[in-house]
Amino acid sequence: MKTFFRVEKIADDCKARAGFLKLNGIEIPTPVFMPVGTYGTVKAMLPSSLYELDYKLILGNTYHLYLRPGLDVIKHFEGLHNFINWKNCILTDSGGYQVFSLQSFRKLSEEGVEFSSHIDGSKHFFTPESVVQHQRVLGSDIMMILDDCVEYPADYGRVEESVERTYNWAVRSLKEFANSEPLWGRKQFIFGIVQGGTFPDLRRRSLGGLLSLQFDGYAIGGLSVGEPEEKMYEITSLCTDLLPIDKPRYLMGVGTPQNILECIELGVDMFDCVLPTRNGRNGQIFTTRGKINIRNAKYKFSKEPIDPGLNNEISQNFTIGYLRHLFIADEILGLQLATYQNLAFYKWLVATAREKILSGLFRYWKNNLILNFKEN
Amino acid sequence: MKTFFRVEKIADDCKARAGFLKLNGIEIPTPVFMPVGTYGTVKAMLPSSLYELDYKLILGNTYHLYLRPGLDVIKHFEGLHNFINWKNCILTDSGGYQVFSLQSFRKLSEEGVEFSSHIDGSKHFFTPESVVQHQRVLGSDIMMILDDCVEYPADYGRVEESVERTYNWAVRSLKEFANSEPLWGRKQFIFGIVQGGTFPDLRRRSLGGLLSLQFDGYAIGGLSVGEPEEKMYEITSLCTDLLPIDKPRYLMGVGTPQNILECIELGVDMFDCVLPTRNGRNGQIFTTRGKINIRNAKYKFSKEPIDPGLNNEISQNFTIGYLRHLFIADEILGLQLATYQNLAFYKWLVATAREKILSGLFRYWKNNLILNFKEN
Repeated sequence: MKTFFRVEKIADDCKARAGFLKLNGIEIPTPVFMPVGTYGTVKAMLPSSLYELDYKLILGNTYHLYLRPGLDVIKHFEGLHNFINWKNCILTDSGGYQVFSLQSFRKLSEEGVEFSSHIDGSKHFFTPESVVQHQRVLGSDIMMILDDCVEYPADYGRVEESVERTYNWAVRSLKEFANSEPLWGRKQFIFGIVQGGTFPDLRRRSLGGLLSLQFDGYAIGGLSVGEPEEKMYEITSLCTDLLPIDKPRYLMGVGTPQNILECIELGVDMFDCVLPTRNGRNGQIFTTRGKINIRNAKYKFSKEPIDPGLNNEISQNFTIGYLRHLFIADEILGLQLATYQNLAFYKWLVATAREKILSGLFRYWKNNLILNFKEN
Repeated sequence: MKTFFRVEKIADDCKARAGFLKLNGIEIPTPVFMPVGTYGTVKAMLPSSLYELDYKLILGNTYHLYLRPGLDVIKHFEGLHNFINWKNCILTDSGGYQVFSLQSFRKLSEEGVEFSSHIDGSKHFFTPESVVQHQRVLGSDIMMILDDCVEYPADYGRVEESVERTYNWAVRSLKEFANSEPLWGRKQFIFGIVQGGTFPDLRRRSLGGLLSLQFDGYAIGGLSVGEPEEKMYEITSLCTDLLPIDKPRYLMGVGTPQNILECIELGVDMFDCVLPTRNGRNGQIFTTRGKINIRNAKYKFSKEPIDPGLNNEISQNFTIGYLRHLFIADEILGLQLATYQNLAFYKWLVATAREKILSGLFRYWKNNLILNFKEN
């Protein structure tokens, strides 16, 4: 456990940290961004492209994989890594967020949550215990506990209830985790999730409860759900002030390049978001020179490389004009190249942030970069 | 010109040939299969994947590229190779087939053909001369003449007319070709197209005319348009009997693995078809063990590699069960892997055919393989 996470350096002028996760022999430099691979594939990316970009940790969604292909299939294949032929690491979420955001029907109780599948309407029941067992079947390197997510805005009473329930479920999750073993020979780690919405005292209460339990890491949940950005930063900062120095901190579902840099400054180590992949498929390209709407007619004749600032074949050797053509002609290769570019950019973003933290220049670099992005 | 095409060996027991095309310094072993890259992309394939599979010659559609992105764009990028960042070779068709198959409106005259865009209905006019010039702009390594294509079935009179017109247009095409120069420093070659439908005497007449003109190679057009397979083989054989030994023969738009093998036996050197890519995207997988409908429920738990008979990462390391899941979940990676597998298979098919021709075992191997495919 000692070597699971190590902080290498904390910035002098802010809370930013550079470190390492070590999962089943694979070292993952932090801060880290995890591409989202909902159904066991990061949409439009060949696994070889993810290796090329040096992604070592991707995310899978327990809720989605439970429904399709189903855990019977994943079990037969002896875990998600085998099923999807992925040599690096996987973090799986618990399905808590999906159950609360994707479903027309859900029934919440202290025992767990009943919900209907968004695919065929069939009824299912998740408990903190079953979700740990589902993730034993998935065999992810890091699993998340089932949490009680609330929409934004929510009233104080509802958020307070979610904090209490998430704590109770955390206790049950840890117990189930302790009383069970990995199925496929991979060591598994488990993270708690802090709730509390945008209420500072409820966040503190949630933290207090979870910190009394021995999780391998802590996630900040319930942000990036519609609250103002300043609120997100305020709550993140409150959490990172109270979270232990020696455990990884994961801000779930965040976010834009600026969000990520601001939250790295606040001491967050891990991020995931559909933004680079989903927006890429919609034609929004993130580059070291700023954002591009690739369908814009002004790019029709552009011979500029997609992003000469990134050191890979696709960013350097395909042009903006060609990428625009692929989108206009509805070609799949457009989705492939856009996703590749955006994930190359996100990788560059966190890798450069890490480098700058180590060299003591993080804030200076970050402020310049954000300015650059805003002017664009 | 002497080194443009070379026959290395002709089988003793059939008309199959192994040879080489040499286009702008790139050697292309024949028989060759050309993946179709309509809009300047082989759908769902990263160019790096095409290099991996050692594809050296792909096809682009003049009609489609003329409409989107438009030749002004391609000209600005100094040719199709540059525009799509493709280091190997490109053959472009003339648009003849598309004008005759995709359009609701077309008006044929001796001068050329007027048609409406399938995208926005706008009116355009192609002549044999303009189509040569379009392909000068595209800068393809091999260009095709504009031909007068007929649907199947068509009456004798209409086919006779198409043979005459295709000959007249061939004369004009060659003249335009001789009186113009490549624009981008790549040597360009030009192929005539034999028409004549399923009428042996008209095929002979078409051949007689075209062979009096000095084309670099000859295509057999107007087949694989709905006629019985036996008819296709009969006409192909008639053509290869009369075509010169020392020039490449290209059977347009063919076909299934069996079609390709039969026509290699009949002495065809070059093929193109949307089958492996289009059917791949629809979930039909070609493997060395036969065809697979990947959506079939029986594959849900299959741990078999997609195709252990092919020597590449994707065919060997991803399973049938995972590929099925990707299709069921409508994941883009499914289209990517299926296309990759099918093109790996088609490459294997023609490369192995070539090897067997050289070793004198072509017919034996071919008959076994076709039997195997039928039993499957």
